[in-house]
Amino acid sequence: MANILIKQLFRETPQFLNQAILVSGWARTIRDSKSFGFIELNDGSFFRNLQIVFDDSLPNFAEVAKLGVGSALTVEGNLVESPGAKQPFELKATRITVEGVSAPDYPLQKKRHSFEFLRTIAHLRPRTNTFAAVFRIRSLAAYAIHQFFQERNFVYVHTPLITGSDCEGAGEMFRVTTLDPANPPRNERGEVDYSQDFFGKETNLTVSGQLNGETYCMAFRNIYTFGPTFRAENSNTARHAAEFWMIEPEIAFAELRDNMDLAEAMIKYVINYCLENAPEEMEFFNNMIDKDLFQRLHNVVSSEFAHVTYTEAIEILQKNKDQFEYPVDWGSDLQTEHERYLTEQIFKKPVFVTDYPKEIKAFYMRLNDDDKTVAAMDLLVPGVGEIIGGSQREERYDVLERRLDELGLHKADYWWYMDLRKYGGTKHAGYGLGFERLIMYLTGMANIRDVIAYPRTVRTAEF
Amino acid sequence: MANILIKQLFRETPQFLNQAILVSGWARTIRDSKSFGFIELNDGSFFRNLQIVFDDSLPNFAEVAKLGVGSALTVEGNLVESPGAKQPFELKATRITVEGVSAPDYPLQKKRHSFEFLRTIAHLRPRTNTFAAVFRIRSLAAYAIHQFFQERNFVYVHTPLITGSDCEGAGEMFRVTTLDPANPPRNERGEVDYSQDFFGKETNLTVSGQLNGETYCMAFRNIYTFGPTFRAENSNTARHAAEFWMIEPEIAFAELRDNMDLAEAMIKYVINYCLENAPEEMEFFNNMIDKDLFQRLHNVVSSEFAHVTYTEAIEILQKNKDQFEYPVDWGSDLQTEHERYLTEQIFKKPVFVTDYPKEIKAFYMRLNDDDKTVAAMDLLVPGVGEIIGGSQREERYDVLERRLDELGLHKADYWWYMDLRKYGGTKHAGYGLGFERLIMYLTGMANIRDVIAYPRTVRTAEF
Repeated sequence: MANILIKQLFRETPQFLNQAILVSGWARTIRDSKSFGFIELNDGSFFRNLQIVFDDSLPNFAEVAKLGVGSALTVEGNLVESPGAKQPFELKATRITVEGVSAPDYPLQKKRHSFEFLRTIAHLRPRTNTFAAVFRIRSLAAYAIHQFFQERNFVYVHTPLITGSDCEGAGEMFRVTTLDPANPPRNERGEVDYSQDFFGKETNLTVSGQLNGETYCMAFRNIYTFGPTFRAENSNTARHAAEFWMIEPEIAFAELRDNMDLAEAMIKYVINYCLENAPEEMEFFNNMIDKDLFQRLHNVVSSEFAHVTYTEAIEILQKNKDQFEYPVDWGSDLQTEHERYLTEQIFKKPVFVTDYPKEIKAFYMRLNDDDKTVAAMDLLVPGVGEIIGGSQREERYDVLERRLDELGLHKADYWWYMDLRKYGGTKHAGYGLGFERLIMYLTGMANIRDVIAYPRTVRTAEF
Repeated sequence: MANILIKQLFRETPQFLNQAILVSGWARTIRDSKSFGFIELNDGSFFRNLQIVFDDSLPNFAEVAKLGVGSALTVEGNLVESPGAKQPFELKATRITVEGVSAPDYPLQKKRHSFEFLRTIAHLRPRTNTFAAVFRIRSLAAYAIHQFFQERNFVYVHTPLITGSDCEGAGEMFRVTTLDPANPPRNERGEVDYSQDFFGKETNLTVSGQLNGETYCMAFRNIYTFGPTFRAENSNTARHAAEFWMIEPEIAFAELRDNMDLAEAMIKYVINYCLENAPEEMEFFNNMIDKDLFQRLHNVVSSEFAHVTYTEAIEILQKNKDQFEYPVDWGSDLQTEHERYLTEQIFKKPVFVTDYPKEIKAFYMRLNDDDKTVAAMDLLVPGVGEIIGGSQREERYDVLERRLDELGLHKADYWWYMDLRKYGGTKHAGYGLGFERLIMYLTGMANIRDVIAYPRTVRTAEF
């Protein structure tokens, strides 16, 4: 007899009803009285449990009735309707095989646990409702992103994680080495001799795949990356992790406007995909984690995103400056309070802020004709603030060269990046989306540690 | 006028024929005579080029005719049939906009370049036929793998790359650190004080996500990982990279047989997906890289994979031992020559070798009743040898504990892994597939450096 996933029973009920079937899963609860009992069985394939009814006609009735929560079972029985009950059907067990018992000190007894406590048992927390829902959404959202880009003929590029260039400039980096840290080889000047390290030079973990991604954009026209990135920043906040996944599309023959259109379409696609493919999980988040979730997501999906320049945004904010802790000056970066005010109070929907002062943005962003601003874009969304950052890239060799000089960067380090501007360079644009930030936005979860299976943060690398 | 991808022109020709259209791309060749010329335009969306015909009715005819190979262009024109010619249609240009010229020293002039040379310009090589094909297949195969598992309700898990446990035991590791290597902090015994490192302890780059993956398998039943892994091994071969991507599914309530069925279905799925979705690229590989490719892939797709135990395989090999350089003894690992002999000469199709001696396999593999072998499986394929390795996992707490003791491993390091056997553990199985090995198999490319965008190998971490 084939072993059926509980998801199939819920999604294709008619073909299993009044049939003998076989399921396997873990007992979320077990209740028994003298001669019968109930088990809520979850097999991880579906958010909801299957109710099992068993009685003392089973030869191992006593054993089953005494099982601890979390035990693994295989159950054979008949699937029957249970009208009027909480669940649409239940399985009348004709045979229960105990695959593995759960010890009495199983930490996930039926009571509410704090997220802080559950982080200490990160190997067990996906067995709870909340984390089962979070990590299913994470899986579906990842797939939705691949589907979105692949349907549009984008090429998925695996950019390297170990990098020999320190010219990405997006944050502090982790060193990767095989040298003996207690006694590294030294050169005649007494410095550490990296020529003897694994790669023959200093290497670090990447902070962004963008520069590498651009090289493939100039071959395939439309590409995306989706992989891990790292920041060795001492930021112990609910929104920073040392290891996180990032999506970085890059499109050729494209300007800032095309870039914004792509970002808008992608965000809407992923939200719709999760709402359609995990309605039970999304309902759970809306009921239990964040009562405004559906309202916020539906607003995003159904609205046309707004557009405002940085300069206009500063004017708007200055008119309301008594609302803010931080000052609002042309030339300073927007604080989260400013970003949220714009998207929540002014536009009441997602808004792209464009054309930031060049001084507060990266060297590779395209200089506008005013010589003061660059063709950058940040997408701000209600409830969070910035969720995507991107730009049109500087495609003009001489302008890029001048920008590197202005910033005191070494052109030689960027030889291959400059080559792209020398050999059939063309206008192009791209953006970066922090995947964990997206999952937080989709689920309402407030701490990045709760959307990463095994989070790596300052002083924490458990499991 | 919307900018059309060249792929659309080839796949949906009728709707564009005899229409005015706009395309953008890079000139692969430019030929001109006095009053007219031809450009082979490639936009990266499709393997084939679009032929552009232009003449001196263009105001910038002279400029266009002099352009270097690799220049970026936007072309407006009418798509017309070109019966009898090599290409089914061509674009009669009414306007050509030069987006970016290519300098005369562009290294990809129309001639054959060695793969070795192209590795030195890895930022430009995806603009060649071979590497455009390789990296499109890589993208499609990645997507096929996601599609295969997602269709089957597997949850995609991002296991951590930075690991604080050194108990994976699958190979040498890279250290990840933010300590100053020239002058690390020391404790009172003079040892490096890792409590002051970023994570408060020693950390490395992972060699496998399997152990973490198993924890999610015990919650979701069926999961897979797909992410980078690292080996700091001093192996300078055509098949080893320090950074590579791996796929590791894990299935609960499953035995070795289920595991083999899953691996067989996955391999066939990915091959079929690439043949169907990139026929031009696959044809190119079959014609230009490996004349046996189609024969080999069709054989894999259409055959039912064979199964043989290690003990039976040793008997078969011993009967033919004069064929081999390395000796064949029960208890030794199979060499590539043995693996290839089995799959190519004996079975003439893919074959699973199962039930290896426990001494040559990892601690977590399930001990068979003979107490000598474990429920391991290696999939051998013609032309390569081993492509997948996996096993049923030891789910019995006491047996796993004994195995750890036998191997002198510290149980305390495995507390969370042991917990899985304590709280509703059940039989489960999984395998690992090196993604680059799969791409080599799909394309016939012989060097792993040629299927990774920016390969990281001993003494090499360029770009």
